[in-house]
Amino acid sequence: MQSHSLGGGSLLLAWQLKNKHVLIVGGGDVASSRIESVLVADARITIICPNTGLHPLTKRFINSPYLITHHDRLFGGADDLHGVDMVLTAIDDVEQSRIICSLCRERKIPVNVADIPESCDFYFGSQIRDGPLQIMISTNGQSPKLANIIRKKIENNLPKHAGEAIEKVGQLRSQLKDRAPGVGGEVGKRRMRWMIDVCTSWEMAELAKLDNAMMKRLLDDGWEKNTVPSPEEVGGRRERYVLGTRSSTTPSLATIILPVLAFAAGAASATAVFISRHHNH
Amino acid sequence: MQSHSLGGGSLLLAWQLKNKHVLIVGGGDVASSRIESVLVADARITIICPNTGLHPLTKRFINSPYLITHHDRLFGGADDLHGVDMVLTAIDDVEQSRIICSLCRERKIPVNVADIPESCDFYFGSQIRDGPLQIMISTNGQSPKLANIIRKKIENNLPKHAGEAIEKVGQLRSQLKDRAPGVGGEVGKRRMRWMIDVCTSWEMAELAKLDNAMMKRLLDDGWEKNTVPSPEEVGGRRERYVLGTRSSTTPSLATIILPVLAFAAGAASATAVFISRHHNH
Repeated sequence: MQSHSLGGGSLLLAWQLKNKHVLIVGGGDVASSRIESVLVADARITIICPNTGLHPLTKRFINSPYLITHHDRLFGGADDLHGVDMVLTAIDDVEQSRIICSLCRERKIPVNVADIPESCDFYFGSQIRDGPLQIMISTNGQSPKLANIIRKKIENNLPKHAGEAIEKVGQLRSQLKDRAPGVGGEVGKRRMRWMIDVCTSWEMAELAKLDNAMMKRLLDDGWEKNTVPSPEEVGGRRERYVLGTRSSTTPSLATIILPVLAFAAGAASATAVFISRHHNH
Repeated sequence: MQSHSLGGGSLLLAWQLKNKHVLIVGGGDVASSRIESVLVADARITIICPNTGLHPLTKRFINSPYLITHHDRLFGGADDLHGVDMVLTAIDDVEQSRIICSLCRERKIPVNVADIPESCDFYFGSQIRDGPLQIMISTNGQSPKLANIIRKKIENNLPKHAGEAIEKVGQLRSQLKDRAPGVGGEVGKRRMRWMIDVCTSWEMAELAKLDNAMMKRLLDDGWEKNTVPSPEEVGGRRERYVLGTRSSTTPSLATIILPVLAFAAGAASATAVFISRHHNH
């Protein structure tokens, strides 16, 4: 906790945009990547950009079934900010960008102006997505290229099925909450401890294979008896011990002999990543 | 771009807090981790919490040289939000939390209420920091424990010296901008291309060793002649070819024979990570 050990960074956040309205000024390459990032968070989008400035990908988004409104014109002033929760601009006109930024700041609307860091309340970073799993890599503007290189390395080394495992654990947690409801208190603590025990005693690949029947048995035989059964005890398969019967498509000696090597070994197999684009401010 | 392939996630951001004022209501364990996250981004902090509720770590922060103001009392209402840019609450009183949340929303102040997702404009995730490099892992609230497990795996597999490499590349980029100034246009594009060439032709460990003399030679002999000299051509050492003279403390055969294995090999060596705490909403 020395005074030089912190500082100089950003506050990394997972911003919530469900039912929120995001205005994107501009429709080029950068704007199209903004659209994608914002759609991931289920935002309603308005794009202001003359038709002539639309990138092919932006056009595809506008013509998609997503909730996107497009105005074929330039930014028209303060009226365009009415009811807007966030503004992202990606236009070449630096002066206009600065005007939009000050209009936003007067109205306390969070704003990002591409390529003008001082006009940004927040930056974008390199991102990875695998279902409910999202990872952002930021170099705090020092090197977008190295961010990108690191992103690829992380992507190649992500545990297989990480996204599926998280999804299943989320479902299990929600079923557990139905069975043992209540916010905080003793039951909340016991729920948390048991979920941690499940996550640490099962492999990621085993968690990913949880189905409804297995979840029910896990809750009946595990939660109710305050223990964590193994995957095979609830009808699944123990990934790391059962050589030959492993259902994974990439059996690897390392994952059987030395579980600690599993992550490095995973680098050799493809990882399902839905979105992996480089986003920069 | 199918309608079911996106959505369900968050917008991951690197929020800027330099010269901003963050109010933290509460002083317990969660609050102390919030203080740390916010100090990373150079915010000015006010903590409102009775002395009796302060976690030892919170006390240490309050007594540190950081810009932290502490009020030994409970939240006092709207007046406490005057001039505040962001609010984080971590108190046990659910009703009070909801009141603070609505006061913030009326004033368009971004707010995070620990443990009440619907009262959060944003969530926290598991984080890694290595100098200018920051990485966030979010499971969108599905499984904080798996986020933590994935964070540790990423941390153990991060290229050694990644943070230092980013720092040096940032310095090189800034020296290049002094030498060839101008926003956007042809020179901007040429700068970007050359920086990408440097980042892709030098190893991370080589970039990390750049000093001022090497940077000058790299710019004189590289940028000016539109080429990228090797590390030894500017007075450094080629990490992957020079067996025996490598100055790295962990020479590894894999990095000499198969550069593609370098990342996996890096997993075996400790990585300098300054902050690696688990933050949850």
